[in-house]
Amino acid sequence: MSEYLSELDPGAASVGVVEKKFYTCAAPPSCLVLESGARFGPVTIAYETYGTLAPGRDNVVLILHALTGDSHVAGRYRADDAKPGWWEIMVGPGKGIDTDRYFVICSNILGGCMGSSGPSSINPATGEPYGLDFPVVTIGDMVTAQKALLDHLGISRLLAVIGGSVGGMQVLEWCVRFPEMVAGAIPLATTPRHSALAIAFNEVARQSIMADPNWNQGNYYGAAKPNMGLAVARMIGHVTYLSDEAMRRKFGRQLQDRSSFSFNFDADFQVESYLRYQGTKFVERFDANSFLYLTKAADYFDLADRGEGSLAAAFAKARARFLVVSFTSDWLYPTARSRKMVQAMKKSGLDVSFCEIEAEWGHDAFLLPSPRLSELIRGFLDRLEREERRQAARGEGGHAL
Amino acid sequence: MSEYLSELDPGAASVGVVEKKFYTCAAPPSCLVLESGARFGPVTIAYETYGTLAPGRDNVVLILHALTGDSHVAGRYRADDAKPGWWEIMVGPGKGIDTDRYFVICSNILGGCMGSSGPSSINPATGEPYGLDFPVVTIGDMVTAQKALLDHLGISRLLAVIGGSVGGMQVLEWCVRFPEMVAGAIPLATTPRHSALAIAFNEVARQSIMADPNWNQGNYYGAAKPNMGLAVARMIGHVTYLSDEAMRRKFGRQLQDRSSFSFNFDADFQVESYLRYQGTKFVERFDANSFLYLTKAADYFDLADRGEGSLAAAFAKARARFLVVSFTSDWLYPTARSRKMVQAMKKSGLDVSFCEIEAEWGHDAFLLPSPRLSELIRGFLDRLEREERRQAARGEGGHAL
Repeated sequence: MSEYLSELDPGAASVGVVEKKFYTCAAPPSCLVLESGARFGPVTIAYETYGTLAPGRDNVVLILHALTGDSHVAGRYRADDAKPGWWEIMVGPGKGIDTDRYFVICSNILGGCMGSSGPSSINPATGEPYGLDFPVVTIGDMVTAQKALLDHLGISRLLAVIGGSVGGMQVLEWCVRFPEMVAGAIPLATTPRHSALAIAFNEVARQSIMADPNWNQGNYYGAAKPNMGLAVARMIGHVTYLSDEAMRRKFGRQLQDRSSFSFNFDADFQVESYLRYQGTKFVERFDANSFLYLTKAADYFDLADRGEGSLAAAFAKARARFLVVSFTSDWLYPTARSRKMVQAMKKSGLDVSFCEIEAEWGHDAFLLPSPRLSELIRGFLDRLEREERRQAARGEGGHAL
Repeated sequence: MSEYLSELDPGAASVGVVEKKFYTCAAPPSCLVLESGARFGPVTIAYETYGTLAPGRDNVVLILHALTGDSHVAGRYRADDAKPGWWEIMVGPGKGIDTDRYFVICSNILGGCMGSSGPSSINPATGEPYGLDFPVVTIGDMVTAQKALLDHLGISRLLAVIGGSVGGMQVLEWCVRFPEMVAGAIPLATTPRHSALAIAFNEVARQSIMADPNWNQGNYYGAAKPNMGLAVARMIGHVTYLSDEAMRRKFGRQLQDRSSFSFNFDADFQVESYLRYQGTKFVERFDANSFLYLTKAADYFDLADRGEGSLAAAFAKARARFLVVSFTSDWLYPTARSRKMVQAMKKSGLDVSFCEIEAEWGHDAFLLPSPRLSELIRGFLDRLEREERRQAARGEGGHAL
């Protein structure tokens, strides 16, 4: 996702200095059984927590990050870090997800490269990075790993699971995989099923990485990295995160640092310069193999594709209350598809609120400052808390609230 | 563009066996003065003609091809060629552009790789291919070269100029560059100004080519070619030629030759397999440097950016009657932009018909069989002929009709 954090008010309240923690499980002879049938372990999960776990353990909000995100949602690792976490605008004292009230957890997804086990992690069997020996994982496998972390933390009930894009897929997966644990769910700018168009963009991005000779079948650790291929993959992603209209407004046909065309293959237009910069910056922080694994997991995602057939049948298992949010200019996961998802949820008798937010910035909109979105989330969490207390007072639900 | 030609009725009338011809001009000390200010020559233009030039030379239809097209619009070079030209469905005896009535000309665009001068042509000064020594050309330069060919053929009036996509840009350019020559114009699925989104896609495709080590700053002739980069570039193009809905209908989430996921990085989905195939096939027929040059020309295209400021001011020079056609599912050059262009034309007092064709196949739709489009073009050419005869009878226009 793009970096808009510099636009934030630096004086806003923050969770302050935070720490990345690690939990390792499924060490042999134990293992995680993956959706592919493969058995994998050990599994390390990098995670962060903000706020205080209530004595009743009833104030947990689990945030699920998007494709290239990480566990670092808010705050800074050091007070003088230039940038805070990726959702600083939403998570902190008095913010939409209020860390004065909620205990917030976010972990890096399985297959990633920000501390959790992924293709760039060391394979204990060989002492070398896994590369393509890392198993292909699914959104379901990511959720299974998150569940193991929650077990470790002694948490059996989630007030809410919240995430956008690929994080939203994990939200949906949580609701049908561990329905008894989830009180409320907020899938943002997401889809219950990756479309052919979304698969196509991911596949072209993967082909770009695999076409880079430095990729070398995934064995590039300690050697030259497939940075050119990864940069192009990132550029493709960026085009899909913005909308036609967003690009017109942001860049139009404005030239970059020149008054006339170069008549060569330099970046003439601002949009070209922007994309090149995003590509170059991305390769400094992201692993090319992780990009392959995480896009593949997204492409495999189809909530209805688990024997039940229809989406409504898949949602029949869910018990959560839902707040579904889409953005008008998101053409990667368009509003029309969110509406269909909401219809399927309603058909399954679920309690669903749906909101389409007017936004001109495309798919990326869920990461941008939006008082509307903050208010929606704050209000929904309020309501979830009230409902959970009411249910607990009635002795319903059988969980420890 | 995609290959849909196999869907054609093989029994349909055809122009039959045709021949590619060549015309060379601007040989030193003469030259073509390009929009960049560069002086270039000699210039070779590959072209084909179908039908018979009327004694009054008043039945000429000039077809302008799209990005990766060529002069081979219709017919076959040999009777046993597997495939006919790229617009066989539209051009031939009794077809939308009826070769029994019209003298049809199409030339390969300047900068291309199908016979006209381009980066893969031999530079007579060195005896080696130009590579990046070939000058960056514009849509206007392409039209200037086409004008030289028409001068050579003794043609001073065009009944119609017709083309889709980048071909449509040439149509528009013809109308304002040589207004006195053009009686009618049919820009299809095109735009008077390349948008930031369209530039973005082209830039990512160019970066993919230039990231391929085999590209070698454009010096790959006689060595390994940047096929991997060019294939990815083509895949990006293909995603933009189809629509979200077209991909959903054509591919959905159907798997390719398998009943379950591979859990590796093979092509699982049909859409992946399709894109890989399109990429692989394309590199056999197209030059990577030409792809760079032609996309750059498209990105530079802005009809209003020539001192006049507004689009309406640019069109004020035009004298042609227009038939503008857009397609509902074309998200590369969307209908809304075509409407704005039509408004600008009307503001300039031009005679414009506009038609949006309901089509689910995205930008590629203009190349697909469409009885509606054939009828529209046939009817418009009919009308142009009548109007031209009427004008000639009144002695108007000052041209030889």
